[in-house]
Formats: sequence, structure tokens, C-alpha cells
Amino acid sequence: MSTLVNHDILQDRIDQFLTLKLQQLPINDNKLHQAMSYGLLIGGKRIRPYLVYITGEALAVSLDDLDGIAGAIECIHAYSLLHDDLPAMDDDDLRRGKPTCHKAFDEATAILAGDSLQTLAFDILANHNFSETTKPKQLKLIQQLVSAGGYQGMCGGQALDLAATDKLISLEQLETLHSLKTGALLEASVLMAAECAQHLSIQDQQALQKFAKLVGLAYQVQDDIIDITSTQEELGKPSGSDLASNKSTYPALLGLQGAKEKAENLFQQALQALASLPYNTQSLADFATFIIKRSH
Amino acid sequence: MSTLVNHDILQDRIDQFLTLKLQQLPINDNKLHQAMSYGLLIGGKRIRPYLVYITGEALAVSLDDLDGIAGAIECIHAYSLLHDDLPAMDDDDLRRGKPTCHKAFDEATAILAGDSLQTLAFDILANHNFSETTKPKQLKLIQQLVSAGGYQGMCGGQALDLAATDKLISLEQLETLHSLKTGALLEASVLMAAECAQHLSIQDQQALQKFAKLVGLAYQVQDDIIDITSTQEELGKPSGSDLASNKSTYPALLGLQGAKEKAENLFQQALQALASLPYNTQSLADFATFIIKRSH
Repeated sequence: MSTLVNHDILQDRIDQFLTLKLQQLPINDNKLHQAMSYGLLIGGKRIRPYLVYITGEALAVSLDDLDGIAGAIECIHAYSLLHDDLPAMDDDDLRRGKPTCHKAFDEATAILAGDSLQTLAFDILANHNFSETTKPKQLKLIQQLVSAGGYQGMCGGQALDLAATDKLISLEQLETLHSLKTGALLEASVLMAAECAQHLSIQDQQALQKFAKLVGLAYQVQDDIIDITSTQEELGKPSGSDLASNKSTYPALLGLQGAKEKAENLFQQALQALASLPYNTQSLADFATFIIKRSH
Repeated sequence: MSTLVNHDILQDRIDQFLTLKLQQLPINDNKLHQAMSYGLLIGGKRIRPYLVYITGEALAVSLDDLDGIAGAIECIHAYSLLHDDLPAMDDDDLRRGKPTCHKAFDEATAILAGDSLQTLAFDILANHNFSETTKPKQLKLIQQLVSAGGYQGMCGGQALDLAATDKLISLEQLETLHSLKTGALLEASVLMAAECAQHLSIQDQQALQKFAKLVGLAYQVQDDIIDITSTQEELGKPSGSDLASNKSTYPALLGLQGAKEKAENLFQQALQALASLPYNTQSLADFATFIIKRSH
């Protein structure tokens, strides 16, 4: 990513923010607290927080406000990973090259840590010291996170994903699945940051939403491509796991070349959506480039 | 309970409210939706909603406002039951005489339904059509539910409960465990309803909090007593399950007679806390009586 230094700074920023949030919790139960930290601070690209920060920066939103949004969204993402990795779900032993939470602790603790991280997301949004201009929008931000994270969003998408295992589904069904499972939270990252902007026109908000939808979809197509073209070392988990678990993917439905063309097409449309915006959206364009060019 | 008719009316009211909330969700995934309904509408005494309604009624809070609070709290309670029943946690096959959610559906669906019900709780609080006098308190209500439901409350208590299995813990540790695991949400039922009252003095709020704490504890002591004195038919699940799973209980620490005395003592203290309040608290007193006298 051409703004890599910036990305590192923002990654440190969100890690510090999340570390502080965990430190502020009372130590009732050490094991649960450790499992929450493990799930939340194990690393990863912090794509959603980064998207929050660069969207907000383009729209002149204060970084302090963006911390609360980025932190809450990352808690939702982290809890979903803990639960998705469970034996009853995707049954993954490795995540980012390390044992998954239920392997490092135990299943009961991983379930509870996930539950607690979901609550922590709403804790952060409801208690963050937002600026005076954002405070009146705090309830709206919670409403947005609810829609993106719950049955209407991410949870519903994971259910569709489980239902689609061992089945051939259509391209349309695959898009619905991903628009909920991963798209909803990526979209919320852009829209919640945009919610805090002053004087954002409806057209500009819609262009940002379109950008977020397209990048979210491109992200998933690229993820499917990477799953079959990368090594285990690059991924930090076994490659080819989609094939092994009989999941419908873009390469399976379109062929590898067809999937690559689709990703490129979504990328170009995402850049077009940005072009209409009267803001400096270079970081967002760079982000879309990163999403589409990454090899792991 | 001497106000049994009232209780039936309020039970119907919360069931109708929760049914409506589920109906308002889009049907993305039938199975997940059905599992959420199963978990939320399987029955039960609706003790927390009832406590919300009778506290609010005593303080002249509108029933429509109380619906949102009662509904949100019951969603948190329902999700915790789905997750607590899982094989990795308490591994229960029966709940209220019916198969637990993971038995009626499957584990993955029960985990996701629990996750979605937690989000639904915040959905309800963040989107409920509260009265103009309660709207400014909506964020505070969300903060209260976060504290009661998350790591600081119910989830932390469940972690302590799991950690205490197969161990002898002190009476003080048992009280901390229960004050978090079940007490926090019962207390929130009283305090969130009280939050919506106009002109409630700090002293009266504290008296209500004290009442809620004492009743919450009495509830747990009585639960432990019932577990060893009831039949499976009365409980809707095997009796003696605490003993079978080597859980610390009040009868185990105090003897059955000692536990009964403790419950009676907490009950008397709860009534004393009510006595100072300048409101008609008959329903709350009746509730405490019901808690302590119930045999299943």
C-alpha cells in the first residue's frame, strides 16, 4: 500500500486504543480477560479500523472520534472470528499463524470471550468520549453497528455461509452471502466514519456507500483467489481450505481467470465511485488497490 | 404470586413484543431466524421483564417505554441460555422440558442464534420508539445493559462459574459469582426501569438497587435449594444437576437448612429496603415473596 507508513501508524493507534479498553475492564476473571485480549490483539491487518480512519480523515473527522468507531467495529470482527473458528463452525486450528482462541484456551472460554467482545463493541460506542459534534450521532452509530453486525448483517451472512457448505449456490446467492458476512462490516466502517462528517451531501454519502460495497465484494473475491494461490506460510493457515470444506467460491463459479477479471472490474467501479467525491480520496483509492493486489 | 393475573398479562405483553421484533427482521436465513425464535419464545417465567414492568409501574413509567427495556434484557437472558447450554459449557439437553437449541437445531446455529440475540438486545434499545422523556436517557440505558451483560457482568459471572466447577469456593466467592452471573441482569431490570422515572431521588434509587441485589441473591439461593428438592418433572430438566456437575451451591456450603435460613434472611432485608420507598411497592414485595416461596 503506498500509504504504508500511515497504515502502520494507524495500526499502532488502534492497537493502543484496544489495549487501553481491555486494561480499563476490571479483572474479574483472568482467563476470560486473557482470552479476550488474545482474540482482540492477536494481530491481523486491521483493515476495518484502517478504513474507518482513512474515510474519516478524508472527511475531516477527528481521529479521537474515529478511535471509538474503529475500536467498536474491530471488537465485532474479532468476536466473529473467535466464534467462526469453533469446532462447531469452521473448526480452524490456526489463525494468523497462531492457535485459534479455543485451541489456546478452551471452547467454553472462546465462546464467552466472543460474547464479551460483542458487548465490548457496544460498550465502546456507548461510552466513548465523542466530540460535541458527534455526541448527538452516538445513538445512530449504535444503530448502524447493530444492522451491520447482527442477524440483518454479519451473523445472517455466516448462517448463509454455513447453509451453503457442500452445496452449489448461484453467483447471486454468493454475493448476498458475502455482502452480509464480510460486506456489511466493511460498509459500516465507511458509513459510520462518514456519519461523523459535517455537511456531507446525500450524493457523496451514497458514492461512499457504493465504494464500500464494491471494495467489500472485491475483498471477498480476492480472498477466494488467495485461498487457492497462496501458500500456508503466506496465509498463516492452511491454503485451499475453501476447497477442502466444500465452500462455494468465486473461482469455483467463475474459474480462476474469471474471478480475477471480476475483482479487477469491481476495483475499477470502486475507483469510479470515488471520482465523483469533492474530497481527497487518495487513501481510499490506495486502499482499494491494496485490497485487489494483495497476495495474502 | 398474589398478582398472578397481572403477571399473566405482562407475560403475554412481553411475548407479543418479542414476537413482533422477530417478525420485523428480514428473513435472510430461515434456520437462524427459527433458532432465534426458539431461543427467545420457548417460554419461561419471564422474571426479568416482569421485574422491569412492576418496577416501572410503581414509578409511573409508561408501559411502552418498559417494553423496550424488558425486551432488550430478555434477549440478553435468552442468548446467555443458548450459549450456557452448549456442550462446551453446561452441556444441557433439556431446557424448560424441551430440547435445548443446539439439540433442536445444531451447535453452529445455536451459537449464531445466541450472537444474533445479543445484537437484537442492543437493536431494540437503540431503535425503540421511547417517549420524549425517555429518549434523552436511551444512551444511558444502553450503557447499563452493557455493564450488566458483558464481561463486567453476566459473561464474567459465567466465566467464574465455569472456573469454580469441581472446586470448593468460599461463600464470598460464590456471592461474587452469582452477583455477576444472575444478579447483574436482575439488578439492571430494576435500575433500567427506574432510570426512566421522573424525579426519582438518589436515596430511592439506592433503595431499589439494594432491593434488586438482595432479591437477585435470594433468587440464586432458592434456585440452588430447588435443584436438590424438586423433581425433574417440576424443573423441566434433571434435578440434582448442580451436584452432578460438581458446582458449588449454597446448600453445599451452608447445608440445606442454612441455605433456607439465608434465603429467608435476604427476603426480609429486601422487604426492609422497599419499606423506605414513597411508592406503592406491593408488586415488588409480592415478587420477592414469589422468588423465595417458589418450589420450581
